[in-house]
Amino acid sequence: MDLKESRSIAEKLFAEVRELTFDGVGVSRESYGARESATADYLRRFAADAGFAVRADRAGNLVIGFPDTPADVPAVWCGSHIDSVPQGGNYDGLAGVVAGLLCLLEQQRSGVRSPLPLQVLGFRGEESAWFGKAYIGSSALLGKLDADDLALRQRDTGETLGACMQQVGADMEAIRAGQTLFDAQAVRAFLELHIEQGPVMEARKLPVAIVSGIRGNIRHNGVQCIGASGHSGAIPRWLRRDAMFAVADLIMRLDEHWSVLLERGTDLVVTTGMLSTNAAEHATSRIPGHVKFSFEVRSKSIDTLEAFYQLMRAECTAISRERQVRFEFDRRLLSSPATMDPQLCNLLSKVCAGKNIPFEVIPSGAGHDASMFANAGIPSSMIFVRNENGSHNPDEAMDLDDFMLGVDVLDQAIREIR
Amino acid sequence: MDLKESRSIAEKLFAEVRELTFDGVGVSRESYGARESATADYLRRFAADAGFAVRADRAGNLVIGFPDTPADVPAVWCGSHIDSVPQGGNYDGLAGVVAGLLCLLEQQRSGVRSPLPLQVLGFRGEESAWFGKAYIGSSALLGKLDADDLALRQRDTGETLGACMQQVGADMEAIRAGQTLFDAQAVRAFLELHIEQGPVMEARKLPVAIVSGIRGNIRHNGVQCIGASGHSGAIPRWLRRDAMFAVADLIMRLDEHWSVLLERGTDLVVTTGMLSTNAAEHATSRIPGHVKFSFEVRSKSIDTLEAFYQLMRAECTAISRERQVRFEFDRRLLSSPATMDPQLCNLLSKVCAGKNIPFEVIPSGAGHDASMFANAGIPSSMIFVRNENGSHNPDEAMDLDDFMLGVDVLDQAIREIR
Repeated sequence: MDLKESRSIAEKLFAEVRELTFDGVGVSRESYGARESATADYLRRFAADAGFAVRADRAGNLVIGFPDTPADVPAVWCGSHIDSVPQGGNYDGLAGVVAGLLCLLEQQRSGVRSPLPLQVLGFRGEESAWFGKAYIGSSALLGKLDADDLALRQRDTGETLGACMQQVGADMEAIRAGQTLFDAQAVRAFLELHIEQGPVMEARKLPVAIVSGIRGNIRHNGVQCIGASGHSGAIPRWLRRDAMFAVADLIMRLDEHWSVLLERGTDLVVTTGMLSTNAAEHATSRIPGHVKFSFEVRSKSIDTLEAFYQLMRAECTAISRERQVRFEFDRRLLSSPATMDPQLCNLLSKVCAGKNIPFEVIPSGAGHDASMFANAGIPSSMIFVRNENGSHNPDEAMDLDDFMLGVDVLDQAIREIR
Repeated sequence: MDLKESRSIAEKLFAEVRELTFDGVGVSRESYGARESATADYLRRFAADAGFAVRADRAGNLVIGFPDTPADVPAVWCGSHIDSVPQGGNYDGLAGVVAGLLCLLEQQRSGVRSPLPLQVLGFRGEESAWFGKAYIGSSALLGKLDADDLALRQRDTGETLGACMQQVGADMEAIRAGQTLFDAQAVRAFLELHIEQGPVMEARKLPVAIVSGIRGNIRHNGVQCIGASGHSGAIPRWLRRDAMFAVADLIMRLDEHWSVLLERGTDLVVTTGMLSTNAAEHATSRIPGHVKFSFEVRSKSIDTLEAFYQLMRAECTAISRERQVRFEFDRRLLSSPATMDPQLCNLLSKVCAGKNIPFEVIPSGAGHDASMFANAGIPSSMIFVRNENGSHNPDEAMDLDDFMLGVDVLDQAIREIR
C-alpha cells in the first residue's frame, strides 16, 4: 500500500469533513439531519470524482464501489457510520468510512483488485444521542425497526424518526413492513475499522487491536421513583418516603453486585447517566417525592445482561417495600451482544503479526453497527485504532500514523478474504 | 374566652387573607414582596379598625397592641410570620398572628387586660424558599444579618434581599451595621402558636402540643461532585470517576450513620432535597462527570449537628480518594437549635391540663422565629396545633376547633405571665 499518498488523502478528508460539520465546540452530524447529509454528499462527490459508483441503499445509507462490480459474486462490506454525537469528535465513525475509501483507492491505484469485490458502507443514524436509539441505519437494512422506533423524536427538532428517514429517501413502506432491504447471502464478510472509545489501548501501548466481541446493553432512559414529598425537619426517618434515598440505595446495591460479579470475572458495566429530583418542586428543606433516572447495563453475555436486569428489578421491589416508594419503568431497550467471527479475527491477527504491528485481541465495550451484522449471521470483525481521551467529545485524538497501520491491515485482510 | 365570637373572626380573617394571596394552586406570600405586604396591609387595617395601635418595627415587621400600652413595663410578645412558601398553605405562619390578634380582641372585649401588656408580632421573611435563608425578619431585629445575607437574591425576580427590605421601609443602615433593633430587656416572653408540620400529633390524636425545643440545621444549598465524564461502555469500573455513584455512596453512608445514631436515641434528620446530573451533557450512555446536590442535617443538639457535619465531610474525603472525584462546597449555613423556656412550658402544660385538653410536650422538627428569640436569651415557648398533610403545600388542613383550643390556651397563659 502507498501509505504516504493514502495518508495525505486521509488528512484532506478528515479536515474537510470536520470543517463542514464543526459546531463551534466539536462536530455535530445529526442522524438523518443536515450535517449528516452534508457529510454523505461530500463523500459521494469525492468518490464519484475519483471514478467510483456511488448510490444510496434502501435505508438511505451510502454505498461506494467500483462501477463494474459484478452482481453475482458475494462482496466484502467495509465501513462505519457518518453521524456523530452533539459536540462530538471527528473520528468516531468517519474513520471507518475513510479507511474503506482508502482501500478502494489503493485497489484502483495498484490495479490489483481483491478476490471478492469491495463495497464501502457509510451508515446513517448509529449514535443514540439524537433519537434515543442506536444502529438505526443498519437496523433498517436488517428489517429491525418497529413502529415505536419510527415514532421516536429527534431531541432538538421533535421530528419523528420516520419523517426524518423519509426525507433522506429511505423506503419507508418496506421499513415499516420489517423487510430485510438487502440480500444477506451476497455479503461474504463485514469489516469495520473504528477508534477505541476507552483507555485500554492507550494504557497498553497498542496502535491497533482486533475486536473479539461487542457488548450488548439493556437500557431504560427514564425510570421514575415515586415516594412522598414532605418537610425535611418535621418528618422522622421511619415515616419518610424519600425517593432520593431510595434511588441512592438502588445505585449502591447495584454497585455492590457489580463489584462481586467483577471479582468472578463477569464482563459488566453499570451506569446511571442521568438523574434528577423534580425541579418544579424540589428544595433543600423538602424531602424529594420524585426522582427520575436512567439505567444501563452492558455485557458481552446476554445471560449476564438478563440476570443483572432481573437483579435490578428485584432490588427495586425490595427497596419499594423497605422505603415505601414505587418505581415506574419506561420502555426497556435491548441491544444484543455480538461475537466477532473467529476466522476473520484470526485473519486480522495473522496480518498484524506479518506486518510486525503490536496488537491484542480485546472486547469492545461500546456498541457498533458490526454487532447488527454479526447477529444477522454475516461474518463480521473489527479493527480498533488507538485514540486518546475517549470518544463522544471534541478531545478525541487519533494519531494518523496509528490510523494508517489500521488501514494497511484492513487493505491486506480484504485481499485475503475468499 | 368567647370562643364562638373569636372563631367567627378567625374564619373571616383566614378566608380573606387566603383570597388576597391565592395563586391558583395554594397561597404565595413572597418574603418582602407584594403579597406578603398585602397581607400586612390587610391585618394593619383590620387591627386599626378594631381600635388597636399598629406600627412597623425597624425591620419592617408588623406590631399591634393597645394604644395605651405603657413603654416602661416589659411586654409579652406573641406572634408568628406572615409570609408563605410558593404554592403553600394558608395557616403556616398566619395562624400564629391571627391567634395573637384574637387574644388582643378578647382582652378588649372582656375589659380584662393581661398583667403585662400584649404585643402581637407579624414577622416578614421567615420562609427560606424565597431568598435561601430563613427567619430574616427576626434576624434583622436581632442584628444578625450580614452582607452575604443582604446580597442574597429573590428566586424569581433576582432582586437582592437588601433592596427588597429597603422597599418595605426597613432601617438598612442599622441592619447593615448589625445593630439590635429593639430593647430585649423590654420583652418578658415570646409565645408563638404554629401548626405542626409533621404527622406526629395527627398520629397521636393530640389537638395541641407544647414545644420543648426547636431543631437547628446545617445546610449546603449546592455541593458539587466532580469526576470525569466518559463512554459508559468503554471505561471499566476501576478507571471510572463516576460522580453519580460517588454521591449515591455518600447518601448511603450518611443513611447508615443516621440509622445507627437513631438507635442510640440521637435526635437527627438528614435530607438531600435537590440533586441533578448536568443536563447540558448527560446521557444514558455517558458516565456522569458532574453532580450537584443539597445537604441538610437537623437536630435539637448543636453538638450532634457539628458532629454529623464533620462526619459528612470525612465521608466526602474518603469517597474522593476511593472514587477519584472531588467535592466542592458552597457557603455553609447554620441555624442554631433552641431550647424553649422550661417555666413557660410548665405554664402552658398547666393551662392545658386545667382545661382538660389532651396534649404532649414534643420537639419541633421545623425551625421557627421563636428559636431566634430563645437563642437571644428571651424566654420563649410555642404551642403547636394539629394539622393534617404537613405544611409547605396547599393541602395543609388545620381544624378550626383545634385552633381555638390553642388560642384559648394562649390567651390564658398570657394572662398568667408576670
